[in-house]
Amino acid sequence: MLYSEMTKEQLLDEKKALDERYNAFKAKNLKLDMSRGKPCKEQLDLSMGMLDCKDYVVDGVDYRNYGILDGIPSCKKLFAELMGVDAKNVVVGPSASLNLMFDYISQCYVKGAGSTPWSKLDEVKFLCPVPGYDRHFTICEHFGIKMINVPMLEDGPDMDVIEELIEDESVKGMFCVPKYSNPQGITYSDEVVERIAALNPAAEDFRIIWDNAYCVHELTDNGDKLLNIFDLLPKYNNEDMVVEVCSTSKITFPGAGVSAIIASDNNIAAIKKRLNVETISYDKMNQQRHVAFFKNADGIREHMKKHAAILKPKFDMVLDHLENELGGKGIASWFNPKGGYFISLDVMPGCAKRVGELCKEAGVTLTSVGATYPYGYDPSDSNIRIAPSFPPLNELDMAAELLCICTQIACIEKLVG
Amino acid sequence: MLYSEMTKEQLLDEKKALDERYNAFKAKNLKLDMSRGKPCKEQLDLSMGMLDCKDYVVDGVDYRNYGILDGIPSCKKLFAELMGVDAKNVVVGPSASLNLMFDYISQCYVKGAGSTPWSKLDEVKFLCPVPGYDRHFTICEHFGIKMINVPMLEDGPDMDVIEELIEDESVKGMFCVPKYSNPQGITYSDEVVERIAALNPAAEDFRIIWDNAYCVHELTDNGDKLLNIFDLLPKYNNEDMVVEVCSTSKITFPGAGVSAIIASDNNIAAIKKRLNVETISYDKMNQQRHVAFFKNADGIREHMKKHAAILKPKFDMVLDHLENELGGKGIASWFNPKGGYFISLDVMPGCAKRVGELCKEAGVTLTSVGATYPYGYDPSDSNIRIAPSFPPLNELDMAAELLCICTQIACIEKLVG
Repeated sequence: MLYSEMTKEQLLDEKKALDERYNAFKAKNLKLDMSRGKPCKEQLDLSMGMLDCKDYVVDGVDYRNYGILDGIPSCKKLFAELMGVDAKNVVVGPSASLNLMFDYISQCYVKGAGSTPWSKLDEVKFLCPVPGYDRHFTICEHFGIKMINVPMLEDGPDMDVIEELIEDESVKGMFCVPKYSNPQGITYSDEVVERIAALNPAAEDFRIIWDNAYCVHELTDNGDKLLNIFDLLPKYNNEDMVVEVCSTSKITFPGAGVSAIIASDNNIAAIKKRLNVETISYDKMNQQRHVAFFKNADGIREHMKKHAAILKPKFDMVLDHLENELGGKGIASWFNPKGGYFISLDVMPGCAKRVGELCKEAGVTLTSVGATYPYGYDPSDSNIRIAPSFPPLNELDMAAELLCICTQIACIEKLVG
Repeated sequence: MLYSEMTKEQLLDEKKALDERYNAFKAKNLKLDMSRGKPCKEQLDLSMGMLDCKDYVVDGVDYRNYGILDGIPSCKKLFAELMGVDAKNVVVGPSASLNLMFDYISQCYVKGAGSTPWSKLDEVKFLCPVPGYDRHFTICEHFGIKMINVPMLEDGPDMDVIEELIEDESVKGMFCVPKYSNPQGITYSDEVVERIAALNPAAEDFRIIWDNAYCVHELTDNGDKLLNIFDLLPKYNNEDMVVEVCSTSKITFPGAGVSAIIASDNNIAAIKKRLNVETISYDKMNQQRHVAFFKNADGIREHMKKHAAILKPKFDMVLDHLENELGGKGIASWFNPKGGYFISLDVMPGCAKRVGELCKEAGVTLTSVGATYPYGYDPSDSNIRIAPSFPPLNELDMAAELLCICTQIACIEKLVG
């Protein structure tokens, strides 16, 4: 029954039962963490075979030594195959693609993107599809980039809004997670990707950071298909507009994976020029370990099925709780993602912070409410990001149940005033 | 006999004999490389035992996963012990300390060093002891920092010059290699270190990048001793003036080592604040490998003796050639370093480029002549950096002999006009 159709008395009765369950949880002194998209131990164990690699001299080249700024050829090839691009358009990076994104924005700040360095401009703005990834927002904040919210629709960001906003020349770019978006798990539709590729921004140095963090992170056999934007860009003379990143952080080891940046010839040349100042080379031994372990892109895809086997039951458990406890009450909505790392829960406006508080009091840590919006400010105080990957199933079971209880309590509190 | 005391005829006779030896070398079609300070294969093999590490869960913390931005505690402790500082003043970095230096200058550029961001200033200048490390200079160039040469004396940079130049408020810093300096192998004397610690620059955001790249890179048992500048800084209220870096690039693997940045509490706080935006963590599995392999600072020092056993004969071979062929002729001078990676050869002014050309024609690649000076410009065209580490002894023998032949030819060419 919809909460909105219940009388105050009915709601308070409901709350009484919920409070009892809530207090029972509190008595358990739980300490559960659903705050970040961390793989669990079983997932990490899947890649331990990688450490057996003992041979780091390939074709006479010693990967233990200095040199090879842009990555060993076989690793560039591996990422090229995985992402459907040419190896010459790949630079292999450090363990975190976040580092590649930060460094790229820093490069634009110091050197510009074929134009005036952004540090020399009065104002630089970025478009931010919301809800989105908090670490994209903190990069913008660090460089003093003003963020403008763009609502996410069911098939990607609202392109009408974007097409209007890019007429402002100070709007210099946008961060996107085009597949299994963080946190909603939405994959941009073909139409959205095509409209992005066709954008005609006033700023000639407009840059889209295409953070393809979940490119092969399927939960099912029939995952979403994302168009390869690099196939579309030439049609619109927009080759230089998009810079893509990906990594093995959630494929092998989060702390010790390999990342890659993919870009046009022009952009790769500018990236290499800066990189030649910044470092000697990234960790080529780790690159070689990855190549030896996976062999090719199919090797990665097969490996991801093992991750899915661990993750799918966790996602299902959370979704079952949401459906069973919150379904049909008109107080919350969520997506059922086919991949990625998160479930995005939208509760009744004005209630998300309260849900976070209630959960915390009972020992369950969620991602800071608000973090999915620029400046940590969710204007409707509605979005909660759930990260089901890390906790064991039995803990997740409790945490998800508690979350549902807290959501109902917070909404009733709001409704009865 | 001094070339300057020889007649033109005597010089030309000398040259005839040298030309014959030179042409004999050319006929061998050599392809030797003495351009960069790369460890040789035997050195890299010393650290292969590190790859046996299989345990990455320590005290219940899984180093394979996300987290621990500033490095695993044991690795911070290892660097702290090695460098004689407190672990809280250490942040463990990526494989290259160059990356840490670039990122730190970038941080000053974007955020300032407790003052106006350097990007917002009309002019930023750095002092550069010369000859010096080319990659320090390219970082300055990247950020538009104007470089001012400061001559190196036998015990470090000319402090009289430095003390005068820092009265200019736009002089914001200095790169140093205080122990076994690149390329001369000079270790700053106690007096120089004390005078540096006591500097009173006009710029309150003056920063010295103390690149201690060769901190434990001794060639002999009685290596040079460098004062720990962090012990001296508090006396002058200069704790925030120095930021030190080091790495295991030339201890374990150049492409896959671990670096560290060491700084005051204030500076570490600013570094961590930026780092929290830039990355999730550096490669903690690699940190753990290093800790498991070395155990403690003594483990590193013992390991360095094995490097010395490989390197010392190479340095001796080059120095013997220099002494035997160039000694007493008044056309070249050099230092006899007790550690580090280079021998710095100063030939008669106006001859270094020509020596480089002659070597190259005969198949020996030296570090680009001029690279040891800002903007690649050696005003007296005199300095040549010799990197003896990489080539096998038999090749090094030939390369060093050829270098001496080329030096003599170039100088005679110059003298006879």
